Parts: sequence; C-alpha cells; structure tokens
Amino acid sequence: MTISMYQASVPVFIRMLNNLIGILEKAAAHAEARKIDPAVLINTRLYPDMFPLARQIRIATDAAMSGAARLAGMEPPKFEDNETTFADLIERIRKAIAYVSGFKPEQIDGSEKAKIELKVRDGTLTLDGLTFLLNRVLPNFYFHITTTYGILRHNGIEIGKKDYLGKF
Amino acid sequence: MTISMYQASVPVFIRMLNNLIGILEKAAAHAEARKIDPAVLINTRLYPDMFPLARQIRIATDAAMSGAARLAGMEPPKFEDNETTFADLIERIRKAIAYVSGFKPEQIDGSEKAKIELKVRDGTLTLDGLTFLLNRVLPNFYFHITTTYGILRHNGIEIGKKDYLGKF
Repeated sequence: MTISMYQASVPVFIRMLNNLIGILEKAAAHAEARKIDPAVLINTRLYPDMFPLARQIRIATDAAMSGAARLAGMEPPKFEDNETTFADLIERIRKAIAYVSGFKPEQIDGSEKAKIELKVRDGTLTLDGLTFLLNRVLPNFYFHITTTYGILRHNGIEIGKKDYLGKF
Repeated sequence: MTISMYQASVPVFIRMLNNLIGILEKAAAHAEARKIDPAVLINTRLYPDMFPLARQIRIATDAAMSGAARLAGMEPPKFEDNETTFADLIERIRKAIAYVSGFKPEQIDGSEKAKIELKVRDGTLTLDGLTFLLNRVLPNFYFHITTTYGILRHNGIEIGKKDYLGKF
C-alpha cells in the first residue's frame, strides 16, 4: 500500500489549522486577562525585518489554500488581508479550513507528476507536484505556524507543544 | 500513481537537514565576523522555559532518525547530546543524515498501517504509521528547524527563507 497526495496535504492542513485556532484562542484569552492590547501581539515580530504575527497567519492559510488548489489545477482564492483582531484571524483560518475541506481526494490524487508553475521573484519556477507539496508547501506551511507559535511564546503566552501538535 | 512512506520521509529529512547545516554555517560565520562567542547563540532561547538552540537541533535530528527507524520497526540510535560548538552541531546533523540515508525504500514503504508505540509522559501512545509520520514526526521536525531559524533571526543572523527551503 501507499499514501496519496490528498492524504499528505488536505487532512494535514485541516488538523494544523485547527491547532492554530486553539493557539490563537489562548493568546486572545491571555491578552484579555492581562489587559494587553491584542494589536500589540498581532503586530509583534521576532525581528524588525520579519513578518508580524498577522502576516504569519495569512501566509500559513494561503500556503494551505494554494497548495491544495495548485495540486488540483485551480487558482486559489485571494483573501483581503485586512485582519486586525484575533477574531478576524481565527475567522480567516476557519475560511481556509472550509476552502481546503471542499477538495475531494480525486481532485488531488495523482498530482505527483503534475507540473506546477509558480511565480517567483526572478521568473517562473516549475516543480512537479510531489516536490511542490513535500519540499515547498509543507515546509512553508509549518514554518509560518511555528513562527506564530514562537512569537506568542516569546511574548509569554502559555501555550505548549501539545497545542501545536494537537490531540492523538 | 501514489507516493510512498519513504518518499514522504527520508528524502524530506535529508533535504531539510542539509538546509539546516547551511543555516548553522551562516550563524557560525556571523559569530566569527562579529566576535560573538558562539556559545551565546547556541544557548539562546526564545523564552526562558523554551529549549535553547542546541537542544532544538538535537530534537530535530532525533525526530528524523527516530521517525525513519520506527517506521522501519527499528530502534533509533542515541547520540550523546554533548555538542557545545557549531562544528559539533553540524557534525551531529551530518551523522543524522548519514543514518537516515542508510534506509532503503523497502524498509519504510508499506508502513502506513504499522503500529507505532511511543512512550509519552502518561504511558504509551499507539499510532498507525501514517498518522505517526504526517501528524507527529513531520510537524515536530519542522517545528524544531523553524525554531532554530527563529532563534538565529531574532539574534540578527542574516539568513532568509531560501536558506530554510533550500534550492529548487
């Protein structure tokens, strides 16, 4: 037996995005309890030329949506990128979950060798579906979720590895 | 066509661990150029109760080695966890790459439904191979590589997303 491109993408996105919602809910509760303006956390970065928390979440959700869409040969949706509160960010994640949940295995399975063309700074990058998913989409997706986690931990939010990995 | 458990694990580990070596080489060069004691960076954490950089790398390498080993029904090696320099850490990563490179596809393919028993704080957690790889090993592996990256970026090391994702 083997695994499928769908199994390695959509359920993984959904699981981790749900974990991310849990993390943001804890951050929102922490901010409220300590009377911290949520905007401070949402605009926090680990370094001046890194992206702030809100943008980490935008990229994580976009990575999941465009990952699924491109493998299915579709164009991903473009959100407005105007979230300013934890509630907005959670709503964005929910919309991303709803979007990727709409894909059926047969839309994505068999895309291992599909040619995926990506616009990059210096032109077009063409990857096969397998390389695109395993070496670009997933590392990128995890990068932005982990960096969100890191920003919040660095600012004292009480979250742990279990919040990131989710329940088993 | 489908993808295999081997494809989704070993080559992914090797690629990312090589990227991690490149990141540490840049950190070591930065420390040398700025006359920063490398031990400062190696012992840096994003928060007092998070793990320092050296331990992030220990866990990332262990995640790759134990991920491959468990899927193949083997016990992973235990390293001494005594690295104190960037050179030591890079050597550890090279040893982890050599170890996972030794697995043949047939040792790991077909492990989707293998029962993987993990010792956890409150007892034993049993996962099937697919869940173990996609929802535990890979998120954990990426978490510790990204956190290494975050610690270094937070301390001004000039690395970028390309160092993390690698060349295409």
